[in-house]
Amino acid sequence: MAGAAVGGVAIGAIGGYSFLTPKETIIEKEVEVPQEVPEHPWTYTKLNVDAVQKRAYEAYFQGGCCYSVFEGVIGELREQVGHPFTAMPTKMAVFGGGGIKGWGSTCGVLTGGGMAINTVTGGATINELMGWYTETDLPVYAPETALKVEGDIAKSVSNSPLCHASVTNWSNASGFAENDPSRAERCARLCADTAGKIVEMLNAEADGNFAPVFQVPDSVIECGACHGKEGPVNNVFAKMDCDTCHGDAHPN
Amino acid sequence: MAGAAVGGVAIGAIGGYSFLTPKETIIEKEVEVPQEVPEHPWTYTKLNVDAVQKRAYEAYFQGGCCYSVFEGVIGELREQVGHPFTAMPTKMAVFGGGGIKGWGSTCGVLTGGGMAINTVTGGATINELMGWYTETDLPVYAPETALKVEGDIAKSVSNSPLCHASVTNWSNASGFAENDPSRAERCARLCADTAGKIVEMLNAEADGNFAPVFQVPDSVIECGACHGKEGPVNNVFAKMDCDTCHGDAHPN
Repeated sequence: MAGAAVGGVAIGAIGGYSFLTPKETIIEKEVEVPQEVPEHPWTYTKLNVDAVQKRAYEAYFQGGCCYSVFEGVIGELREQVGHPFTAMPTKMAVFGGGGIKGWGSTCGVLTGGGMAINTVTGGATINELMGWYTETDLPVYAPETALKVEGDIAKSVSNSPLCHASVTNWSNASGFAENDPSRAERCARLCADTAGKIVEMLNAEADGNFAPVFQVPDSVIECGACHGKEGPVNNVFAKMDCDTCHGDAHPN
Repeated sequence: MAGAAVGGVAIGAIGGYSFLTPKETIIEKEVEVPQEVPEHPWTYTKLNVDAVQKRAYEAYFQGGCCYSVFEGVIGELREQVGHPFTAMPTKMAVFGGGGIKGWGSTCGVLTGGGMAINTVTGGATINELMGWYTETDLPVYAPETALKVEGDIAKSVSNSPLCHASVTNWSNASGFAENDPSRAERCARLCADTAGKIVEMLNAEADGNFAPVFQVPDSVIECGACHGKEGPVNNVFAKMDCDTCHGDAHPN
């Protein structure tokens, strides 16, 4: 609380009467009001890719893949920017781990990544993130201090946004069981790669030079000729590579 | 900024001297302080199922399926409870629509549902939600005022947590194309069903009588005998029904 005396006293005398203008003391009193949470989307501030990758890598071992990427990006904004990111309970993303509670559906890095991106933008970069994830040989990230398994980790291309497809492809490529410690190490590094990719894209978007490169797989176009909007059997709405699961479904 | 004059002026005269008690003006100056947000998870308050269903149904037409369920539950908490739910920008869930930006991966009602549940609990009900979604003939919800297509809407069982599988099954069951207006009406009603199911479970959990019934599909147990943790080819981690996509993969 701060007090400041301003104003003053004027004294005069007219016709034997003494009079004063009263001395006025103005006291400024600080009243605490909670900061208003801004409208969605919250303003993004460019982040350091290395710092976000490290945060995501470490967070994986605290709350799994979906939490890792959400905390990697939003946690770094919380530290660098503060309000309103201090209001976001990033642990709400734990659910997405293992393709939602171990169901093997969408890989949690994409769910947590979507949540992070969509907190600060309309989300134009999410489509690019999905494409990048499905077509890139991952993981690339090499931690300074490995938390589970040291040394190189085998890479693989998921050809799918799904957790179980991604894990099985990696398991087949590496020769390690899905519950081997090196699989957890692989997923932690994949989290770092994904959080880093997000920040690269958001930084580029902030600079006005984000340039998406992803094109939908050929199978989506080929199968879509019958099963898509313009086809006679218009019953599929997707951008996932059809061949990954339905390669043997029926001849094209 | 608000100003309030308090105190007053007293005038007297003793022995020819005039004196005044000083006038005090207190100016209240608002100082923004970081909003205190409780630790995760935020406290859940029991909600009315009908109100949440209606909110979710209407929200679908504002931001798609994932937003719909997240806004259905969190928006109702925002209205009924206020802080801290007023701090949650529910539009951050728009990304999950159509299995994340139309990719056809996890159905957005499950992503938005997981986000909502995990905001207020550790998420024990999410597994049950996934099971319920994959095995229930949906939609059941009938809006008082239909916003897209009036009358009955065909039901179907998805046998999968994935958007494109769910939509294709419905399209095949109903005979409507995936981009027919009745498909949007079906998805909006499915959102209402899902948000309602979540609140039923959370209310039961609050009353201490939540009783999960979901059992993993037989295929997960059968295929898991080889491909799961205890099997010789331990390369799959999932609870999704294997047969939905891999029924012809190879003989059991």
